[in-house]
Amino acid sequence: MSFFESLPDRASIYEVGPRDGLQNESAAVATLHKLRLIDGLVRAGLTRIEVTSFVAPRWIPQLADADDLARLLPKVDGVTYGALCPNARGLARARAAGMREIAVFTSASETHNKKNVNRTVDETLALFRSFVPEALAAGMTVRGYVSMTWGCPYEGEVDPRKALKLVHALAEMGCYQVSLGDTIGIGTPKQTKELLALMCSEVKPELIAMHMHDTRGQALANVLVGLELGIRNFDAAIGGLGGCPYASGASGNLATEDLVYMLENMGIATGIDLPKLLHASRIAEALVQRPLPSRVHRAGLGHHR
Amino acid sequence: MSFFESLPDRASIYEVGPRDGLQNESAAVATLHKLRLIDGLVRAGLTRIEVTSFVAPRWIPQLADADDLARLLPKVDGVTYGALCPNARGLARARAAGMREIAVFTSASETHNKKNVNRTVDETLALFRSFVPEALAAGMTVRGYVSMTWGCPYEGEVDPRKALKLVHALAEMGCYQVSLGDTIGIGTPKQTKELLALMCSEVKPELIAMHMHDTRGQALANVLVGLELGIRNFDAAIGGLGGCPYASGASGNLATEDLVYMLENMGIATGIDLPKLLHASRIAEALVQRPLPSRVHRAGLGHHR
Repeated sequence: MSFFESLPDRASIYEVGPRDGLQNESAAVATLHKLRLIDGLVRAGLTRIEVTSFVAPRWIPQLADADDLARLLPKVDGVTYGALCPNARGLARARAAGMREIAVFTSASETHNKKNVNRTVDETLALFRSFVPEALAAGMTVRGYVSMTWGCPYEGEVDPRKALKLVHALAEMGCYQVSLGDTIGIGTPKQTKELLALMCSEVKPELIAMHMHDTRGQALANVLVGLELGIRNFDAAIGGLGGCPYASGASGNLATEDLVYMLENMGIATGIDLPKLLHASRIAEALVQRPLPSRVHRAGLGHHR
Repeated sequence: MSFFESLPDRASIYEVGPRDGLQNESAAVATLHKLRLIDGLVRAGLTRIEVTSFVAPRWIPQLADADDLARLLPKVDGVTYGALCPNARGLARARAAGMREIAVFTSASETHNKKNVNRTVDETLALFRSFVPEALAAGMTVRGYVSMTWGCPYEGEVDPRKALKLVHALAEMGCYQVSLGDTIGIGTPKQTKELLALMCSEVKPELIAMHMHDTRGQALANVLVGLELGIRNFDAAIGGLGGCPYASGASGNLATEDLVYMLENMGIATGIDLPKLLHASRIAEALVQRPLPSRVHRAGLGHHR
């Protein structure tokens, strides 16, 4: 019974809906509509929001408005917006648009990394080393992603030491946090304990964030394991936006509402107002014009809060 | 890190889809179609299946075929079928139809119990005492349900000592197991730990089953807490069938697939074959003619198993 004895008072949510969510929608969402969603997220209390990606517009047409969007972001004290940057050109655009935080992304699966960015993982790290120092020198913060940490659609199981090696590499490069992704949502709690225990044997849990997809309904059970192991940073997407190109009809990212519902009702403060968050998810649903998979979005809060 | 150190080798799943699931569908499913689903569940390895309810047919028209269905059940070694029985008349029908197990149901919420069966909880227990001994004397097994254990749509929070009192009463009556229900799916892990720790302070964990609804996506996280506290019995419904009349569009019972996916991938044997279980959930979906909420049903198994 010796669990939940060191639950934290607070946890930090990193909202990825505007980027990770909307980039997977078949139709691009208008810039002003994205801003309406971001405004709703800020009003709900989210302070860390990944809004777009400065990749070449032809790669992800849904995010081709990155420069305009970044310039139009509401400036709010205590709110940090992030954007993916794959290369120096992306960084130049992000800086010109006034971004203060970027994120770099690689994969624990060599095959996936190659298919995703047409480079080996080592080549990808070398590329990051060519522009991350410039971002840091400019006073920006840099976040790292390691996708396919729990497994890969091409390679199946992935040795968690590959992700650990990348965590070290990204931290040495200056990333303040590395987000480990269960990109295809196959992880279960025992694997998660083993994987995170390995990470925490070499790095501080504060360095790690969990980026879980709820594809098989396991995300919150995995988050619970992370909480127990000292993880305090969790990625989520409003409404459960997002999804995985390899499993059509599958749900995507862990829904911010479902995560916040669990944390707040466990006495772990997130700084987020749940009724206002449900308002933001109604905006998200209007944007994408399909029912969102979040359970709390669909059911409401019940008698809690 | 001292959790998951006493995970069990096995857990037992009690399938409630044919009863708890189909009774909430607006249209009744034909008896032979129900039998096709039950056959699929048995082939997948489920050995405990609640198939119907011997309530007055006017109460739940969807289960009005209880007598016929029970007589047509496939007789398979090691498989036990259960049915709800509200009173002596229900027991007489269940016995006449050859049932070997019944279940009795009450609520931790006085208001819900009154609305559900038009009796106080004490009156309900007295009624059970009028026919449960006959069932036991006939060699039947009897299971108990306590719904609204985590909270109630009418009363809000419910004192867990009310459920504990009912667990004692049902066990004293001869129930071999008491299933505690989060009927509206509002529970979160810290509450679940407190609630189950209270139960386990007075009764053996083997007496308790958890019947979680996934209305707010919390069911598996709560199951994880139960596992850690020694609970080994879990109710689930194929495809996540079921739902709650108080929250339209909300998902219902914890999906059997999602639960089995988690348990088997944690090394906890259920005796259930996941690909065959997904076949059964495709049958269930064809029966109700709407997409089922189970995440694993929608996404498939990925590279696991």
